[in-house]
Amino acid sequence: MPTEPAWSRDEFEAQLRSKGAAYHIYHPFNVMLNTGKATPEQIRGWVANRFYYQIAIPVKDAAVLSNCPDADVRRGWVQRILDHDGFEIGGTRDAGGTEAWIQLGIATGLAREEIIDLRHVVPAMRFAVDAYVNFARRSPWQEAVCSSLTEMFAPEIHKQRLANWPEHYPWIESGGLQYFRQRVSQARRDVEQGLTITLDHFTTRAQQERALDILQLKLDILWAMSDAMANRYGVNP
Amino acid sequence: MPTEPAWSRDEFEAQLRSKGAAYHIYHPFNVMLNTGKATPEQIRGWVANRFYYQIAIPVKDAAVLSNCPDADVRRGWVQRILDHDGFEIGGTRDAGGTEAWIQLGIATGLAREEIIDLRHVVPAMRFAVDAYVNFARRSPWQEAVCSSLTEMFAPEIHKQRLANWPEHYPWIESGGLQYFRQRVSQARRDVEQGLTITLDHFTTRAQQERALDILQLKLDILWAMSDAMANRYGVNP
Repeated sequence: MPTEPAWSRDEFEAQLRSKGAAYHIYHPFNVMLNTGKATPEQIRGWVANRFYYQIAIPVKDAAVLSNCPDADVRRGWVQRILDHDGFEIGGTRDAGGTEAWIQLGIATGLAREEIIDLRHVVPAMRFAVDAYVNFARRSPWQEAVCSSLTEMFAPEIHKQRLANWPEHYPWIESGGLQYFRQRVSQARRDVEQGLTITLDHFTTRAQQERALDILQLKLDILWAMSDAMANRYGVNP
Repeated sequence: MPTEPAWSRDEFEAQLRSKGAAYHIYHPFNVMLNTGKATPEQIRGWVANRFYYQIAIPVKDAAVLSNCPDADVRRGWVQRILDHDGFEIGGTRDAGGTEAWIQLGIATGLAREEIIDLRHVVPAMRFAVDAYVNFARRSPWQEAVCSSLTEMFAPEIHKQRLANWPEHYPWIESGGLQYFRQRVSQARRDVEQGLTITLDHFTTRAQQERALDILQLKLDILWAMSDAMANRYGVNP
């Protein structure tokens, strides 16, 4: 097989961004959620199941750190763990994204207890999320970073929720949507670091295509998570 | 073999602390360093080799995080990574312990470059330090936490350095000793978390004896590090 020339940095970034076409924003279960067709039970099911993903994120990010010998990268990446777990350093305090997600759950009518004990989490949800954490544990840290790049597409899905949920689901107290608000800006900052690392590291055409495969794996994981919830809670026409 | 009754919490802590008798504070190479008998070359060799341990610490701590599903524990433990790598959060800035160690090296006459490129690090030093990181990666996080408990004995060795080095080695600028100063208080706080986790987790006698074996492993690692440096730089009578 002849070796294809490497894509330019801009072309490679465009190739990565084109993967957004497979983002779960287009999954029937998400379309249902964000067009106002979900029942309270379906929304609660989504929040409770997705919590398993939320709590896996800081563990996944610690796996990146634990494989990364570059202190400059770690200094940027550790912010993700602080964002999710919360922190109190100097005079600055943040309750963290996991707590914000629990507040979302409470706003939809779930009790804190039934969120954190994971009773609603379906097996296929666990398998998909665990696949993500295991990939991050066992892969070179640059590949784990690349797998996080679905966050390029996340601000859009969060903005969709912020725009549509208050109209379609007025019974959810708007304070509960704080998680989506904070992730819009955090995801932008995170993308900047993850994308720079990916564009710097994957430089031959074969490596660039490997990066696209890794991003596809993560898209498959997110899609499988939506499938798992659709199978459990159904998709309304 | 009959099952021995578990030690009480106090007795178990006393057993752990008694392991201090095998701490490398008693290793001939360390005794030489802290009694003023080391040459500048031996001191520089120690600082340059020990740097390999310093940079492994945040990676080891990230391995603990990446195996730990308890967000409360992570919130405490992540502070160790921030302490070593440095951070700037809100108005609080810390250059980090790794940078403080480099400053120590510069104060002893090493160039930054020859510290960070690891040219002086002997193979046996790498093997011992890597054994520590690999143990933390592959063990349950409570065992990795237990292995960190040699820090119970660390304030003493740092205080010894602070007390003796200015007298014996006046050619080392005292600002270079800042690392030892900050670790005295950091190690005390770290011990508190590590010891609580260990006393809570290892509760049967068999588990308590396993904890002592783990602590011994870490003591062996620190001793082997001193052996590696003694073999390379010699021990003066």
